[in-house]
Formats: sequence, C-alpha cells, structure tokens
Amino acid sequence: MFKSLTIALTLLTALNASAQMQFNRPEDAVKYRQSGMFLQSYHLGRLAAMVSGRIPYDPKAALEHATLVDMIDRLPYGAFIEGTADRGNSRAKPEIWTERAKFDGMVTKLHEESAKLVAAARVGTLDQLRPAVGAVGQACKACHDVYQRN
Amino acid sequence: MFKSLTIALTLLTALNASAQMQFNRPEDAVKYRQSGMFLQSYHLGRLAAMVSGRIPYDPKAALEHATLVDMIDRLPYGAFIEGTADRGNSRAKPEIWTERAKFDGMVTKLHEESAKLVAAARVGTLDQLRPAVGAVGQACKACHDVYQRN
Repeated sequence: MFKSLTIALTLLTALNASAQMQFNRPEDAVKYRQSGMFLQSYHLGRLAAMVSGRIPYDPKAALEHATLVDMIDRLPYGAFIEGTADRGNSRAKPEIWTERAKFDGMVTKLHEESAKLVAAARVGTLDQLRPAVGAVGQACKACHDVYQRN
Repeated sequence: MFKSLTIALTLLTALNASAQMQFNRPEDAVKYRQSGMFLQSYHLGRLAAMVSGRIPYDPKAALEHATLVDMIDRLPYGAFIEGTADRGNSRAKPEIWTERAKFDGMVTKLHEESAKLVAAARVGTLDQLRPAVGAVGQACKACHDVYQRN
C-alpha cells in the first residue's frame, strides 16, 4: 500500500516540477513555503522524539510520520520564486537565486533522504529509523545553514 | 496511479485519526492547522482560477492540485486540540470543542467533497471540475462561517 503511495508521489513530483507555481502576491509564496516547512518540522520532530526516547516508539505512527515528511517534502520548493527573498517575513537569502543549481542540489538531497526515511520506517525497527531521521534532519540543516538568514 | 494514491491516502487517514497529535506548545497546534489550511487554499485557489477562466485550464495541473487538496485535507483537523482556541493568532471559536460532533461532521463533509474533487479532476473536463471546486469551497466556507472568528 505504501509502496503504491511512494510510486504515485514520484509521479506527483514530476508533475509538480513541471507546473510553475504562481502566487497572487510574493508574500503568499513565502507563506506557502514556510507553511510546508512547518508541517515537515512537526512530523520530523515526532520521529526525532521517538528515536531519542522522549516519546514511545510506535512503528505504525512512525511510518505515517515518515510518509508525511516525504509527501509534504514535495511542496515548498516550487515556491522559491525569483523576487520573493525579502518579502513577508522571509528568511531566504538572495543567494538561493544566484546559486540555484547548488540550492536545487540540496533540495534533491532532502528528497532522497526523505524517500530513504520511508523505506527505513517500513522496516519497523528503531535501529533502522534512527540514522534515517538524522539524515533528513542533516539535509534540512545543511540548506538552512547556507541559505537561511538568522 | 492516482487511484493507488487515493487508496493509500484512505489508509493514511485511518492511521492519522488513530494517532493523537501532540505539540510542544499550544501555539504550534494553531500554526500547524493554519499552515495546512493555507496550503489547501493555494491549491484550491488555482483550481478556482481555472474554472473561472482567470488562468488557462490545464487538466494535468488540475488533477495535481485536486490530489494535493485531498491529501493536505487530512492534516489540519487533528490539530484542533482542547485548549488551543485562544493561543497564538488562532481564530478558532471555542464552540468547536463544545459542539465537537457538529464540527467533525463539517470536516467529514470537506473530506467527502475533496475526494469527489479528485474524481472530477480525473475526468478531465471543466464541466465536471467546476461544480466540484465549488462544493469544496462551500464546505470550507460553511465551517468558517460557524467556527472562525472575524
């Protein structure tokens, strides 16, 4: 069942990449990507709490959180549109648009680690889950360290 | 492919309903549901723009937006947790928690209309899509009219 979801999400990614996002106001692009990243942080945070022992490990809930991280992961990056670095309360550095290939590479890395997270969660052991959660967190942090203002 | 996604999402809904959401701070529950609803409003807004002729009708993009409306639709309502009506910048009325069955019924109605939206988008004609987009918008509005402060 979850394999079907992953396959379908791969298709969705392909579609999403081909459809240029358009917003009524630049501020809405900022709000869209921040909203997506907030949802991701919640679900990844639940997994981090499980692997660190702060909440009980629940394999079924872990697979759900991992699937949602991977799913939501497809959304925010299409909203990094030119001219939206300094709008709303954005913390995006302008280098995102002058180093686009590097930025896109970091986003691709995140997608890869999120897909691996789902695979690890499907195994159903903390030993598999723990490094996969760490790797997604590292992929988030690597990009924030370079492209997010304090 | 999209049928598989819908089936998998149905499973995801069942899981999500069974897993009580927990947040570090009540404000985070507010931010979570607002983030989810903002993403929904973007994708539904693109569909509304298509059916009203403000942007060109693109059947492939329409199916993607509809699928995302239906997918994201599963997320925000688990975050309507007791004690979070007046936190952060929440506009949720306290009646949500005193009339929970009525509120949950409205959420169920939204889920039903979102599922129908995907089916309508899959047909690939504006004639099918237009009323389905309207019905989802009505389901959003019906609940906001009753349970959202101005």
